[in-house]
Amino acid sequence: MLPSSIAIQGYAGSFHELAARHYFGSEPAIVPCATFGDVVRQVTNGTAGAGLMAIENSIAGSILPNYSLLQRSAVQVTGEVYLHIRQHLLALPGQALTDIREVHSHPVALLQCADFLALHPWQLVETVDTALSARHLRERAQHGIAAVAGEAAAQLYNLEVLAPNIHADPENYTRFLVLERQDPERPTGPATKASLYFHTDHQRGSLARVLTCIAGHGFNLSKLQSCPRPGRTWQYYFHADVEFEEAGQLPALLQELTLLTDDLQVLGAYQRGEYY
Amino acid sequence: MLPSSIAIQGYAGSFHELAARHYFGSEPAIVPCATFGDVVRQVTNGTAGAGLMAIENSIAGSILPNYSLLQRSAVQVTGEVYLHIRQHLLALPGQALTDIREVHSHPVALLQCADFLALHPWQLVETVDTALSARHLRERAQHGIAAVAGEAAAQLYNLEVLAPNIHADPENYTRFLVLERQDPERPTGPATKASLYFHTDHQRGSLARVLTCIAGHGFNLSKLQSCPRPGRTWQYYFHADVEFEEAGQLPALLQELTLLTDDLQVLGAYQRGEYY
Repeated sequence: MLPSSIAIQGYAGSFHELAARHYFGSEPAIVPCATFGDVVRQVTNGTAGAGLMAIENSIAGSILPNYSLLQRSAVQVTGEVYLHIRQHLLALPGQALTDIREVHSHPVALLQCADFLALHPWQLVETVDTALSARHLRERAQHGIAAVAGEAAAQLYNLEVLAPNIHADPENYTRFLVLERQDPERPTGPATKASLYFHTDHQRGSLARVLTCIAGHGFNLSKLQSCPRPGRTWQYYFHADVEFEEAGQLPALLQELTLLTDDLQVLGAYQRGEYY
Repeated sequence: MLPSSIAIQGYAGSFHELAARHYFGSEPAIVPCATFGDVVRQVTNGTAGAGLMAIENSIAGSILPNYSLLQRSAVQVTGEVYLHIRQHLLALPGQALTDIREVHSHPVALLQCADFLALHPWQLVETVDTALSARHLRERAQHGIAAVAGEAAAQLYNLEVLAPNIHADPENYTRFLVLERQDPERPTGPATKASLYFHTDHQRGSLARVLTCIAGHGFNLSKLQSCPRPGRTWQYYFHADVEFEEAGQLPALLQELTLLTDDLQVLGAYQRGEYY
């Protein structure tokens, strides 16, 4: 069932909105949120029917605080979507590169464009959102300032592309998770991927045994992320994404993993995402 | 041999300086750097004899861009040091909590104190350094603004502790790596830990085989971090820290690992760090 509203991190014209539109279409209302924590809250308290949250980028890597949010919150992962990220340098029309003194954007976007930005004597200013940085240029009529954001923001706020495709790596993708409120009654659709988390005891080789079990059951480990365990200095829990052909294989894997791990949880079983 | 100068991320009164003093003593000059990239550059071009770089915090987790720096740079890890992080809310003397409107600090420090900060209606402003935020309060005589920083910054800049120990977790430690320029001639001291990186092919179970090999050789895996491979979308390389009793065991492990991994590199073999 299509949710009536989708919480996203960021504002109109952001990559989160673009990902949400690809996944859910144009119908649901967008609920912009200043932080990822707000996205999760909107979903858990029912204000939004679903949420979109970036979890990793193919260049910058994992967004670690979001793994922590997943682990602490009553949400489940019901899908994923991959978005090709193309970053542009935007400014009010009529300016040249040499007019620019400051560049505003989200820290991840600045990092993705670090090679290009390092060629210029610009002060970098971190903001909460790529699209919001673009919007501020327009609303505040700021000359001498540029924003790093996507094509959608350029069009929405009528900004000029001073330099297109300034991200270092042409293969720049962000993976977004679709979040819904935990609900044991929710019917599970056909799944080809699952997100798990667990921790292991401190015995030598305990993580090796877990991964050997996953491989032995024929599952492909597409991602393994270690995160600090709150209150347990230098102990880690692990997020593992596993891919499979048949959801029917999952219960047997989970049964064996419960013997090898502590606090094993399935964050969601869902279909592998499409690329846009 | 004691290096004559140590590059650190941050400024006088920062946790990096404190860690450098614990490891190297009071003699070497401190070379403050605005970014971690600058620290690595000062070490590789020889301007500084060594560098200190935070690599992970027991609450916030890995500092992912620093793993990428390690992998790309001609530095080697020659030591590590653990520092107990105690964050305080600092302001110009004579102010109350209710006078504060904004709190400035490094994003990691803000994250470490998120629970406390969320109780107040303060705007959070991310800066490049905890100690620099404290220094600016003093230099600019800023009322209504507080900084999150350590005790050393409070003393150095004569600020009042409005709220002590505001970090969420009392067991808040940061691990710093000691970096020196790669030099095959450098004599290797007694080592009890090594930092490796490698990547594996995409075959099912390849990471499981690597970890099984490490455990089979009697090594303890103290940390495993996955990072995106530049130019290889959704492929990862791994940073692994292994601990051992006898450095003489290392060559046999490395020999077997070269068969199971690609591009295996030893970033350094060194003594396990002390806690301060």
